[in-house]
Parts: sequence; C-alpha cells; structure tokens
Amino acid sequence: MASPDADRQALAERSARALFEPDRASQSLGMRIVAIAPNACSVTMTVRADMTNGHGICHGGLIFTLADSAFAFACNSAGRPAVAATGSIDFLAPAREGDVLTASAHELWSGGRSGLYEVTIVNQHGARIALFRGRSHRLGDRTVEPRTEP
Amino acid sequence: MASPDADRQALAERSARALFEPDRASQSLGMRIVAIAPNACSVTMTVRADMTNGHGICHGGLIFTLADSAFAFACNSAGRPAVAATGSIDFLAPAREGDVLTASAHELWSGGRSGLYEVTIVNQHGARIALFRGRSHRLGDRTVEPRTEP
Amino acid sequence: MASPDADRQALAERSARALFEPDRASQSLGMRIVAIAPNACSVTMTVRADMTNGHGICHGGLIFTLADSAFAFACNSAGRPAVAATGSIDFLAPAREGDVLTASAHELWSGGRSGLYEVTIVNQHGARIALFRGRSHRLGDRTVEPRTEP
Amino acid sequence: MASPDADRQALAERSARALFEPDRASQSLGMRIVAIAPNACSVTMTVRADMTNGHGICHGGLIFTLADSAFAFACNSAGRPAVAATGSIDFLAPAREGDVLTASAHELWSGGRSGLYEVTIVNQHGARIALFRGRSHRLGDRTVEPRTEP
Repeated sequence: MASPDADRQALAERSARALFEPDRASQSLGMRIVAIAPNACSVTMTVRADMTNGHGICHGGLIFTLADSAFAFACNSAGRPAVAATGSIDFLAPAREGDVLTASAHELWSGGRSGLYEVTIVNQHGARIALFRGRSHRLGDRTVEPRTEP
Repeated sequence: MASPDADRQALAERSARALFEPDRASQSLGMRIVAIAPNACSVTMTVRADMTNGHGICHGGLIFTLADSAFAFACNSAGRPAVAATGSIDFLAPAREGDVLTASAHELWSGGRSGLYEVTIVNQHGARIALFRGRSHRLGDRTVEPRTEP
Repeated sequence: MASPDADRQALAERSARALFEPDRASQSLGMRIVAIAPNACSVTMTVRADMTNGHGICHGGLIFTLADSAFAFACNSAGRPAVAATGSIDFLAPAREGDVLTASAHELWSGGRSGLYEVTIVNQHGARIALFRGRSHRLGDRTVEPRTEP
Repeated sequence: MASPDADRQALAERSARALFEPDRASQSLGMRIVAIAPNACSVTMTVRADMTNGHGICHGGLIFTLADSAFAFACNSAGRPAVAATGSIDFLAPAREGDVLTASAHELWSGGRSGLYEVTIVNQHGARIALFRGRSHRLGDRTVEPRTEP
C-alpha cells in the first residue's frame, strides 16, 4: 500500500505531466522537467540562437519564462489548478547561446488560495543567472489531471 | 536644420532599429515595433498556438517577454546601451491564441545609470492583460548604433 | 436625494475616517488624510527628526509606511475591509527632516478579491521621492464602518 | 594578530554601531540589533500599541521598516555606505501588539555597486510574518565608520 508521501509524489508527477504535455510554449522552447516533487520542480532549457536579443545574450524574458514554467509546475503539483498572479525577477548575470539553464522552484509559503514561490536559475557551471519570485492564485477545486486515464 | 527634438526622435528610431534587427528572440516571437520615441516604445505580438501553456492560455512568460522587449527598446532609445536589472509583472487577465497584444513602455524616472519604466500590455480590444515595471542599468558609454552606416 | 456618486463619495469619507481614527501608527507618525475619493486617497506626513536614519535622511521604511497608509485608506474606501498582500517601492530621491511628503494612492485594477494600487510620494516641491505599488486582498463582507452612528 | 575573518567581523560590528547610533527612526521604534556579521544582520522590535493600524494589527509599513533597518545594517557592514534602491515585501500573517518581531537579513548576491538582500521576519513563536527583498546601491567609497575613535 502506498504511503501518503508516495501518493503525494505520484500526484505531483501526474500533475506535472498533465500540465506539461499540452504546454506548447514550454515545449517549443525546448524545456524539460528534470525533477518534480510536491510543491517543487526543476526545469532545464538550452539557450538557442533564436533566444538571443540585440545585445547578443539570452533575452531576459525567456529566462523569466523558464522560471515561470518551473513555478507553474511546482504550484500545480497538488493537482489543483493555480495560475501566476505576479512574478518578479532580478537578473544577476547574462546567459549566452549554448548555455544550459536550470530553474529550480520551491514553495516558500502558502495560505488560503495564495502561494509564494522562489525560483533560482543557474547555468551549467552552477553560476546564478537570475532569482525569481512568484505569487500563485488557486483557481478553484477543479483538477488538472487528465480526465481519462486508461 | 534638424531641431534637437527631431534629432532625439531620429536617434530613438535608429537605436531601436539597431537593437531590434539582431534580436532573434523578439523576431522569432513575431514582435513588431509599432511606435518609438525618446524613452518610449510600443511593440505588438500575436499570440500563436505555440505560445499557449497547459491551461490553454498565453504563457505568462511570453507576455513578460513582450513587455521586456518594449522596455528594452525604450531604455536604449538614447543610443546608450542599457540592460534590465529587474522586472516585475502583475497578470490581470488571460490572453488567448489569436489575441494581438501591444506592450507600451515609457520612462517613469531616471537617475544616475538607473531608469525605471512602466509597461502596459493590452489586447486588441484595449483590455489590460498585464502591468510590468522594470529597472534598467546603463552599461557604459558605448553606442548601440550600427558601427557602419552607408 | 443623493446621487450614486455622492453616496460612494460619502461612503469613502466615512470608511476612511473609521479606519484612520483607531490607526495609532499613522496618527503617531503625524499623518493626515488630505483627500479621499472612491478607490483613491492622499495622505501627508512631515519628516520629523525622529524619522531620520543613520545617513541623516528619512528612513525609507517610514516613506513606505506613508504610502502603505494611503494605499490602505484607498483600498478600504468602498467599506469592505482589505489588507495589503504585497507592497514594493522604488526610492527615487531622499527626503529630509522638515520635508512635507504627500502620498497619493489610486486603484490601477481590481478583480475578484484582489486590487492593485499605485502610490506616488512627492515632497513639498512636487519632486517625486518614491513610487509604491501594492496588491490588496479583501477579507470578506464585513464592514469597516463604525458599528454605531449617532 | 587578527585573522581576516575576525577583521571583517570587527568591521561589521563597528559599521553597524556607527549606523545605528544616529538612526533616530530605528531607535524610536525600539529596535535592537541582536546579531551582526559581514553582510548579515538581525534586528528585533516589539509591537507597541502605537504601531497598530485601524484593523488592530501591526501596521505593515512598520514591519517593512524593521526589515529595511536589518537590510541597511547588513548592506553597510563592509563599511562602505549603501542605500536601498528598491524593497518589496510579502505579508504572510498579521503581527499583534506585544509580539516580538525579528528581521534577519542576509546577502543573496552582489555585483558592481548593487547588492540583493533577503530578509525574513518572524514573531516570538518563530512563525513567519513577512518576507522582504531589497536591492542596495553603494554610494561611493566614503566610510560610514565614526571619524574619530578614542
């Protein structure tokens, strides 16, 4: 018989998969979920040439997008749909074409329908590229799990 | 003879063009600059299917990216390169596939090497989708204008 | 017979008074409400010697506090209690002892139980000292009006 | 002979003292520095009756002020004067009259003249009341140490 922890972990994995599969934005940017746990998620993305801006470095918006995806998978990991209400980012160092970025999100706090998440974005050398903080708002009691499972 | 205002306007147009042309991220997302002035810029983007997330709405990160591009063109419009130090966004309403979003950036304040910009993102009906605020940091005294001009 | 607008204005005035009277923090800092309207409020505070920090200028926290009070009176002006969920401030210029600061708050947006407010803080010369943005969360359907009125 | 670490610690203590002594705002709010280290500081404040707002709880601005003081002492601890450029706070739980709040600040990152600090505010039971993040800007190369020491 599964333990409550194993159940929560399995739910987190199912919820992330259910949210990631139809997420065409994250998929077309080449993101991959590399770790998922209740209220936490890590996502990677390789900086492609078509992600660079006029200064020749990765567009800050796409670094935000990576963080926002990790945040989304983390705050939906209990199977109850939530969306971002706000997000803020501090850019610490540039990322360049070919860099492999990893955004790791975890919950700082939750209360009522709100949750607060911290996301750290590092490159392949472990150097911090940006710090993101987001506030989520849970929509209701619908599930994000697929409606039918074979 | 050109007036100082006309000079500043011409410089803003040249600077935006010089920054937008090599900006593969903004271009691959289909962005277009629709207005440029000293310290202000409006950019549009149509929400494509590959910009939607697992909730079936435009990925918030790409709304941030649109705002960040408008911010970048505005804060580089005096020809001195600046990058985003921080950005924050409040999401007010969802955007959907086919929506045409316009992000309009203007300078709120500048002092020393810092600038503070406000960006409003609306859809094709004028409904506000998000509000963005960014702080820029000027890099130095290099120019972003093209090195050679015929 | 009072118009709906006059009713809303009267409610805003009653709500602000009901919230300000027991607000010992705002009162002990010498704040005064100088304007109130539905979803908007202006509050003044004179920078006293005991409000200065170790750099000899007004403590940034007290500038935030002034802005937060104006925000509170504005977001409670419809008589339904709301509290601040988040606040952020950009400091633009220092304030000094003797300066008379005015914080003017207005609603940018509201949706569900959330509201977004902008507060501009200026000194007696009209120079901007700081820009504040806050997100409010409405508590429920209780009233902040005094329970008994003669 | 003092080690470099001991020197940095002694400098942090001297710098905090030099900044706290003339800080009339922090002193009149009853703040006390309870820990200081290079780039880190903890400050306590007891919520007095004259710190409560119209909802009967501690004014959020004064919680921000406590955090901002801890941030200031932390980011000035290397003896080079710095001021807050921006601050943002998420309010998690109310604080009440008599509560003893502790704000603990530490540096997340620094680069050029900017620093990024995280401050956690807890009450006497260890419950988190608020999370603060601030960005500092170093003013120049002056020292904040006292000019003469006996």
